[in-house]
Formats: sequence, structure tokens, C-alpha cells
Amino acid sequence: MIVVMKVNATRGQIVNVTARIEGMGCQAHISEGQERTIIGIIGNGRPLDREQLERLDGVDRAVPVLRPFKLSSRDFHPQDTVVPINGVAVGGKKLMIMAGPCAVEDEAQILAAARAVREAGAHMLRGGAFKPRSSPYSFQGLGEEGLKLLALAREETGLPVVTEVIAPEQVSLVAAYADVLQIGARNMQNYALLHAVGESQRPVLLKRGMMSTVEELLMSAEYILSHGNDRIILCERGIRTFEKYTRNTLDINAVPLLKQLTHLPVVVDPSHATGKWELVAATSRAAVAAGADGLIVEVHPHPEQALSDGAQSLKPEVFQRLMEQVRAVAGAVGREL
Amino acid sequence: MIVVMKVNATRGQIVNVTARIEGMGCQAHISEGQERTIIGIIGNGRPLDREQLERLDGVDRAVPVLRPFKLSSRDFHPQDTVVPINGVAVGGKKLMIMAGPCAVEDEAQILAAARAVREAGAHMLRGGAFKPRSSPYSFQGLGEEGLKLLALAREETGLPVVTEVIAPEQVSLVAAYADVLQIGARNMQNYALLHAVGESQRPVLLKRGMMSTVEELLMSAEYILSHGNDRIILCERGIRTFEKYTRNTLDINAVPLLKQLTHLPVVVDPSHATGKWELVAATSRAAVAAGADGLIVEVHPHPEQALSDGAQSLKPEVFQRLMEQVRAVAGAVGREL
Amino acid sequence: MIVVMKVNATRGQIVNVTARIEGMGCQAHISEGQERTIIGIIGNGRPLDREQLERLDGVDRAVPVLRPFKLSSRDFHPQDTVVPINGVAVGGKKLMIMAGPCAVEDEAQILAAARAVREAGAHMLRGGAFKPRSSPYSFQGLGEEGLKLLALAREETGLPVVTEVIAPEQVSLVAAYADVLQIGARNMQNYALLHAVGESQRPVLLKRGMMSTVEELLMSAEYILSHGNDRIILCERGIRTFEKYTRNTLDINAVPLLKQLTHLPVVVDPSHATGKWELVAATSRAAVAAGADGLIVEVHPHPEQALSDGAQSLKPEVFQRLMEQVRAVAGAVGREL
Amino acid sequence: MIVVMKVNATRGQIVNVTARIEGMGCQAHISEGQERTIIGIIGNGRPLDREQLERLDGVDRAVPVLRPFKLSSRDFHPQDTVVPINGVAVGGKKLMIMAGPCAVEDEAQILAAARAVREAGAHMLRGGAFKPRSSPYSFQGLGEEGLKLLALAREETGLPVVTEVIAPEQVSLVAAYADVLQIGARNMQNYALLHAVGESQRPVLLKRGMMSTVEELLMSAEYILSHGNDRIILCERGIRTFEKYTRNTLDINAVPLLKQLTHLPVVVDPSHATGKWELVAATSRAAVAAGADGLIVEVHPHPEQALSDGAQSLKPEVFQRLMEQVRAVAGAVGREL
Repeated sequence: MIVVMKVNATRGQIVNVTARIEGMGCQAHISEGQERTIIGIIGNGRPLDREQLERLDGVDRAVPVLRPFKLSSRDFHPQDTVVPINGVAVGGKKLMIMAGPCAVEDEAQILAAARAVREAGAHMLRGGAFKPRSSPYSFQGLGEEGLKLLALAREETGLPVVTEVIAPEQVSLVAAYADVLQIGARNMQNYALLHAVGESQRPVLLKRGMMSTVEELLMSAEYILSHGNDRIILCERGIRTFEKYTRNTLDINAVPLLKQLTHLPVVVDPSHATGKWELVAATSRAAVAAGADGLIVEVHPHPEQALSDGAQSLKPEVFQRLMEQVRAVAGAVGREL
Repeated sequence: MIVVMKVNATRGQIVNVTARIEGMGCQAHISEGQERTIIGIIGNGRPLDREQLERLDGVDRAVPVLRPFKLSSRDFHPQDTVVPINGVAVGGKKLMIMAGPCAVEDEAQILAAARAVREAGAHMLRGGAFKPRSSPYSFQGLGEEGLKLLALAREETGLPVVTEVIAPEQVSLVAAYADVLQIGARNMQNYALLHAVGESQRPVLLKRGMMSTVEELLMSAEYILSHGNDRIILCERGIRTFEKYTRNTLDINAVPLLKQLTHLPVVVDPSHATGKWELVAATSRAAVAAGADGLIVEVHPHPEQALSDGAQSLKPEVFQRLMEQVRAVAGAVGREL
Repeated sequence: MIVVMKVNATRGQIVNVTARIEGMGCQAHISEGQERTIIGIIGNGRPLDREQLERLDGVDRAVPVLRPFKLSSRDFHPQDTVVPINGVAVGGKKLMIMAGPCAVEDEAQILAAARAVREAGAHMLRGGAFKPRSSPYSFQGLGEEGLKLLALAREETGLPVVTEVIAPEQVSLVAAYADVLQIGARNMQNYALLHAVGESQRPVLLKRGMMSTVEELLMSAEYILSHGNDRIILCERGIRTFEKYTRNTLDINAVPLLKQLTHLPVVVDPSHATGKWELVAATSRAAVAAGADGLIVEVHPHPEQALSDGAQSLKPEVFQRLMEQVRAVAGAVGREL
Repeated sequence: MIVVMKVNATRGQIVNVTARIEGMGCQAHISEGQERTIIGIIGNGRPLDREQLERLDGVDRAVPVLRPFKLSSRDFHPQDTVVPINGVAVGGKKLMIMAGPCAVEDEAQILAAARAVREAGAHMLRGGAFKPRSSPYSFQGLGEEGLKLLALAREETGLPVVTEVIAPEQVSLVAAYADVLQIGARNMQNYALLHAVGESQRPVLLKRGMMSTVEELLMSAEYILSHGNDRIILCERGIRTFEKYTRNTLDINAVPLLKQLTHLPVVVDPSHATGKWELVAATSRAAVAAGADGLIVEVHPHPEQALSDGAQSLKPEVFQRLMEQVRAVAGAVGREL
């Protein structure tokens, strides 16, 4: 942390700030510039309270210098983390493709979807049983019945299952059926839920909030890691911007940036990131080209009848073509499907 | 809803879309323009699935025409809703000022804060017992102990208490101590929590998410209203933008806009909306001038020692001056403190 | 500037960075923390190239500590600048209200507008002769003919005139007719134009770009100030955000923030900041309550026939009521109309 | 355009709106829904003024249905436009790679850069002679001297040259030296400049503004096209968002979206879109995988001494590796380098 004093700060104010820093068990380094004095803090390993420092008289502002995430940082854990999931794995040379409908609607739909995505080469089945919807008038999911149908689809196809959990008290229920617990974008900072999935020791798919920074995503991972659970797959799924022709803006920069900052695997959700099925194949190719460790794609046997996310869901035959394209790009960047 | 067909849509595709609309129990009005055909839908009162329509062949896009919120809309409830809270009220001529520390830290702190804000003329005490923090390394609140201290402060000062609830299973615990349940910005779309506070029938302070539109705020209110609980106070607390000199950007437009769209009362949180205590008085005056029904302001007896939000918390004497300024502006716009 | 070294930076890399800093004529202060080394730079008054430092081996990033604006900073010019304009002034106790149509359309329209706004108490007339429009199919303004009509309206009403200039080679033409040269939001970073109005020594109304930070606004003012022209009025006119119910988001925080950072006067354009005439009065009151030195408001004798910006233009009688409300709020905050 | 009436609109108001629409030479189709009346407008091919309609009594809002761009739309020009440039071409099967320094600094630098990028396989040389900089204290470019050095580099290497033009009166000067005129992001809505490059009939590289929508980019292309100049290359260069670890956010969605909406070629600038050289190769691969027709990349012989954009400029050997990676990805998506 660097404390920047005001131009007209007095000698006494500088002494007071220094005393406060030393009272926190840290060292203060004073640099007197032409315009103003700057005080560098050498810490003791514990986080500093920036806001307390900013409230001291004569202080203009405090500038953090170190990054606040530790357990997720590649600085202290250089090797890639590989997350094993019931026979498959995320984070190694082989890409992980998760696919399936937005929501589980009924037995016929989820079985048709599961078979179609397996046939196209996907490695895991996605599908929502508990659906957070912005309108109370929209379909809210089948609940536990949906979880049972997912388990049935796994039995039929052998594909592990990822599904969303939306409240702490549901974690054990969902964990009884699913292989991977998904934290949705709206819950990325639902800390009670992060603690609960951390304790569960299950693999977690952590989606970036639509208006969360990369740093905040890593701080949410930190909550899960602080329970000793490092089976975390980060997911870039588009952020909210001023552009309105697409539902969200896929932050493709975040893929290589995250791979640089953290050891955790990173996948991309091109369906939510675009909101338009016509853009899903192109952005899937881009994600893999940029270094993503996998994809999570919405596929529905009949998108025009889907109870949610129809506009961004692929028909099985379109998904199959996407997989062929992704396979070619994967090869070009030294990865495998 | 309006369905815009593609320029090269065929006769058969138009017939198919029309049949689908009629199959939904609605009427289709076809307009053939110079460039393309447009199909207006006259609904039957139930929400339409835009995405299903967008997936039909030959459709360019579907454009919603009606606003999706109903129970919160002023169109169907023209009079202002006034929310009564233990002897005070929000939404009438008199403004409601809530003030107090970000977090309850200990008995001395909360009592000092409560006395100071009452003396300055505030009507309600704020203070967090459960604190959602973006870092697991930050102070997380005192929990139930904090709730007890808030109740003690209410006993001492007579001020009703508002405090945040962060998980559905906590609602009855928090409701046992607090007069108003606060839904924080990060939980505005935590639907399990919205259902729980809806059922509680307690007054709710619903904060706008930093990433949420005005429409989404009203849709979240709709979740609470759908349980018959209309004791809802909406709170504008700043949105996230590209500007970084301030913590958030106070969306002052939202104040008159919400007063136009909804019958629910609207308050402003100038502390989070700016993140800088020097800007709190000016934005408080602005909020009241724009028509807000109240304010929620962070005040701490010793901001430079606050365990959270020190940079945006006011000292008691600064809050007292703010109250005088707000009283003058209130008078200028026909309101009272 | 602070240089943060990588965790694994070598001794040699640190020495190299230090040598580079000294080669720039600055001093380097090395602090060795627990995790990494940080190097503070004590400058020689000239700006440092952050990017060059970031490219040196072993450097994680460089963090600027000082603010980049100088001539506009209140640090070095504590007293308010008051800009005199042909008998009126901006930046003192008295507020400055500019009003008039978006575009000059014809003689009858501009004269009717000018008389109406003078009658309501405005101090200056606004109106565009050269209109930058996002569509080439929209009305582009009357050009010099519009400037002549503005001069005619000034003669008739005695109101000084502010109008936009959109290209450097137009500056002398526009200055021949107008009292204040307006730089529009889309041209805030048109540096050729900033140089030209700087040289003109005329008063300038500098609008913040819809995509520009407060710091960038001050850097654009710096271009004009570097020609010795300090007759600059800054204008907050709304920024682009994700919210779409309003045309822009009025950044009300920017008003007290700018008053703190700079000595230049600050006015607000509530018409562009909202895009909806129903929201203009409320946000005008808010702007004045927050400390703005004036307003620039779109008023049209017949908004429903306006060739541009009809949706956000006020009818004369609505503007008159706005002026009464603003007068009351001005009094409450110690200002005068 | 659809006009949505207010819930309580009167019969007379509806009649008045209808009359106004017919007075514009259009037809009005009235649909009376359960809640409110909606009036569809069938146009006469000329743009409608939405704002005038929104100002009529009883109108809630007007919703545009058609897209405002015409000449750039693929609807009316289905085949891809290929832009020929002095022996090379953009928009066909072969990708176009432009590379070179941010700014021309001196003869040695630009010649070294030109040779290096040609050797690595680039097809065109980029380099700025007129530099728009946010600070008046930064290097502003060599001006005409820079143009001469670019021409010299072209003579030496045979690479055509693209360089920025920042004011209308410069267009003929720059066109005397350069093969392609670049409109920078800050000038995307500098309409005087767009008209000037439109008239020049030279190939234009039109960069998207950092806070401009895809629709606004196409409207700016419309200005150039309206002069009969269709030699336009669109460039996605990152947009401004709340994320601050990167300089901008590359909107990768915009690549396939633009290819769907328009016939004009689309290239990507990964240097500005990320602001960090370490992220340039990954995002270049992503751009090509997503369907971009080319790249424009900053390369400098000595980035740590660059007078601008050092942090995002590649060393020649890093650019060479990037080209190999891009070649592999191009092959995987059916394109060629």
C-alpha cells in the first residue's frame, strides 16, 4: 500500500500517518517528492485496511500495490491445477466440453439432449433443476425432480452432470445427484453459498458475475479455496456492457489473463456470453484459440420449444458442426478434444 | 410483442409464425412494409416467450412492447405506497433518514452511533450484523451478537432498526430483532432470499444491484410483492460504470424515473454511491432535490477506526451539518424532515 | 510512480530498473517487502512514461501516484475561476442558466425560443448551427445561416449565445457570431479542435464525452489551458452505462468531485443526461443542490415538431416551472439565480 | 416504428397520433390490446422521427423496429465486399495482417520495424504520424515528417502503408503518402472527417469508438458510403467496460455479429483491445478463429523505448511466433495467411 499525502499536508500529519502504520505492525518508508510526500508501507503479511488510512488527516488517497488474492494466485502456485471429475478432468491438454439444455424440462427432453451431446463428443451434461429467473412469472425449474432426471441421464449416457445450486441449504441435496456444483453468475458473491460449496469438497463450476471484475472472480474463488477445496473451474460467461445487440459481451481477454494470474482451469460459456445461437460457434472457436480449457454450451433438442434460453440454444446438428470446428482449432493450438 | 421477419422471409414462414402465435392463445396482426413483414401480437394477459418466437424460421427478432413488471407498476396502482415502520413511515411528505455504521462492531460503538444520529435528527438506525465482503480476509460481522446490540440500541434511543439479511434461513432470526429487513445489492437477484422476505410480511429495504437495471430492480420487487408483501422501500445505491475516481456512480436519474414507474417509495444511499465521505453531503442534497423519499447514510463515531467502509462514513458532526443542509433542500421541494 | 516487481524478479532486474529510473533524471527508492520488491520514483517534475517502465524485465506493473492534470488542478490554483461572458459570469455565487433549442431551425423558432427563455429568467441562449448526428440521414444544422439567426436573437433579447463548433477551421467563423464556443461530447478528445479553441482565447463550454472519465475531461481542459485560455466551463452531460431506460446516466457524483479537483466552473446538462423531458426538472434541481454553477437546458417552442432532440426538450411553460423550482433549491444551498 | 400508447390514453389522443403518422406520408395500424393501444407504422422508405412521436400526448414511447443502417447492411448487399489495396486485398479468403509501431519515431525505428514485420509475413505497415494523445504533455507524433518516413519504408519493403488522419483538412496531405486512411477510435463520430475521407475515395480503416455500439460503427460507415466510397475496413479495437486489469475489453462477439450484419470486411486490433503485450497472441488467435478478415498489431523494435504504447507492443521475435500461431488457426478455419 502507498499512502499519497495531500499537497498541503503538514509535518504533524505525516508523523501521525507514520505512527498509525507502525501501530499496525508495518514499516513506513517516507519519500518526499517535489509536490508531495508519499509513504510506502511494508506489510507484515496481513491485509491492510485501506479505508482507515484514507480517513487520516492530510491523506489524499491510499493506493494498493499487491493483488488481494493469494490461494488462487499463480505467483504462489505456478503449476496448473487439474480438476478430476468422475473419470474426466479439466485443466490438462484435453479440453472439457459440457453441453445440454438450460433447464431440465422432462424426461424425454433431457434424455434426448444427453444422447445428442454425447454423440457429438461432449464430455459432460449440463442442465438446470433450480433456475434463478429475473421474472417471478417465468419457469423456475423442476427442483429435485430435475435432479433425478439428470441422474437418470447420467446413468443412460455415462456423462457426468453439472447443475446449479442456488442456496446453501440445498448443497447436500444437489451434491447427492450432481458431479459438479455450479455457482451461477448472480450468485458469484453469495458468500454463504460459497462457504457451503467450499465445505462440500465437491468440484465447483464458478461463473463470473455479469458485472464482476476478474479480481472479484478470484476473490470469490478464494472463499472456496479457504475451505481447502481447490476443485474449482472458473467460467467466463460474458459481462454486461453498453452494447445491446448481444445479451452480454464475451470478455475474451479474460481467458489468457486468468491463465496468467491463476493456476485454476478456465472454461467459457459462449451461449450466455452472446445470447444468440448464430454467434455460439464462432465464439467457441475463439475461446479455444485463446487458451480456454473447455466450453459449456446450451444445446436443446427443440430450441423453439425451450422453456428458457431458446434463443441461445443450439440444435443437436448445429452443435455437432461446432464440435468439428472446435476440434480443428484445438489441434491448431496444441490441444485435444 | 412485435415479431420482425427477415427481409427474405417466405410466405410459408410468415404463416408458420402466425400459427404459433395463435397456438399461444393470442392474435397476430400482420403488417407488410416496404422492406419486410412485421407481426404484432395481441396477448391474452400471460407473458409471452420471446426466445421461442425468435427461434422460428424467418424471424429476425422479437421486440417486447409492454413492460414486464405489473404489481409494482404505477399504471395499475397510481397512488403512492406508504410503508409504516414502528411509528415512522416512508413514502409520505416527511422524509425518512436512516443512519448508522456500516457494521456493528461493539456495544460502545453502536450506542455512540445511535445516540449521535438520533441527536442529529435521523429516524432510523442502520448497522450490519452479517456482512457480505468481497474478500474472505475481511471482517464478516458479529452475527446474532450484532443483532442483539442493535436491539439494545433501539431500546436506548427509540430508533427502529434496519439490518441486512443474507440467507433465506436467517430471515426469521433477523426478523426477531430488526424492524426492516435489508436486501443488499449483491443479493438483489437472490431469488430464494426474495421469496423468504416476501413471506415474512416484514418491511423490506431492497437495494438495487450495482449491475442491475431499473427494470430488474422492479422485477425483484415483483418477487416480494407476489407474496402479498408490499412494504417495500427501493434503494438506489450507485451502479458500476467505467468511472473509477468514485466507488460507484449514483444514478440520480433513477430517482424521478422510479417515482414515475412505480408506486413504491425510493430512498438513496449516498455513502455507497460515492465511496467518499467528502461527496456524501452534496449527493444527499441532490437526492432529496430529485424527489427521494429518504436517505440511508453511513455514520461512525470514529471512521478512521471503522472495521469497514471507513472512507465513506461520516463523523457525527459532519452528519449533523448534512442534516441541516438536507432540511433546507427538503423545504425547497415541499418536503419535511 | 511506483514500480511493482514480479515475485520472482532477480537482483539484476531490480538494478536495471533502478538504472533506468536514474537515467530519466529521477531518484529510485527501493522497498523490499515480504513478497516482492517495490521501487518508488521521485520525479523531476516531468511526466514519466509508465509503459516503458512496464516493459522492463522483472516488472509486474507500474502504478501512477500523482494525478496527470496540472493547470486545471485546484492543488496549484485553490481559488475558483470565474468566467466572464459579455456581462454575465459563471463560477460565482450567481448560477448561470443557458437554455434554448437543440438546433436552430428557422428565424421564428429561434426568436420564439430566445424570448421564452429570457422571460423565464435564463441568462444565455443555446442553439446548434452545426449538428453532429449519428446518422447521415438526420438533420445536420443550418450552418452559417444558423449562426446569423443566433446573432439576431442575441440582438433581440440581449442574451449572450453559446453554440457548438465541430472543426478547427470553423473556429474563427463561429467566434465571429458566438459568445461561448461549445465543444460537444463527441469532440472532447478532438485535440486539433481543442488547440484551436485554446488559441481563440474565447470562453469555451467543454462537454464531457459520454465515454470519458473525469480525469480525461480535465486532461482535455489541460489542452485548452496550455494555450493560456482559462475561460473554460466544464459540463457534465451524462455518461453511457448499461441502463437503457434513460439515454445517458447523469453522473451527479462528478459535480462535487470536479469542484474538489479543479478550480474551473462546472455546469450540468440535464437534457442529454436523461433524454426524457419528464426527468429534466428533477435532475436540474439535483444538479444545483449538488453544487453545480449552472445548467444548460433544451427548450423548444414546439418540441413535438423539433427537428432534433424533441423527446428531451421542454415546452416554455415547463421550463418556467423548472426555473421556479431551481430558484428555491438555489436559495436552500446559498446560491442565487 | 411502433408507437405504444399510455394505459390511460384517450380516444382523441389515439386519433391525433394516427393523423400525425398519416401526415408523414405513412400508414398507421391500430391494435387494441387488453392493457393499451399500440400503433404500428408502415413507412414510406424515409426515416421517421422517433422523438417527435414520443412527444405527442398519450404516447408512452416509440420503439424502432428497423435497423437504421442501409448501405452497409448485408440485407441489401449479400456478397462480401473485398477492398483492394495496392496489390493486396482485405475481405477474401486470405487474411490481411497489418503491423508496425504505434508512432513513427525516426528513420531507423520505422525501417527496422517495417523489415521485421515483412520478414514475419505481414502484408501492410502501420505507424502513426499524427497522434491523438489524451495528455498534452505526451509525444504528439512527427507530422508530415512521419508520413515521409512511412513512404520511405514502403519503398524499402514494398509494404503498403496505413496511417491515421485526425482532421478533415489533412486528408489530402495524408492521402498523398498513405495507401489506407485510418480513422481512430476517438474520431469515429467526427463527422466532418468522415465526410472528408468519404470524398477522398481512398480505402479507409474505420476503428470502432471505445464506447460506441456496433450500430453506431455501422452508422459511421454509412457516412463514408454515402459518398460512394465503399472501400471500408471495419476494426474492432476493444470497448471500455468496468474491467480494469486490461486497457479495454475486446468485444469478440462483434466479429461474427458484424460479419452477419454487414458486407464490409472486419479486422481486429488486439494491441489496443488488451493493452498488454502478453495477451496479444492469444487474442489474435481468437480473432482469426472467430472469423476476422485480418489483424492490426503493434510491433516495435524496442518496446521498452517506445514513445507510446510500449506496454502493448510486441518485439519482432514475439510477433514472428504470433504469425506462426495465427497461420495454424487460419488453416483450421479455412483461411490463409
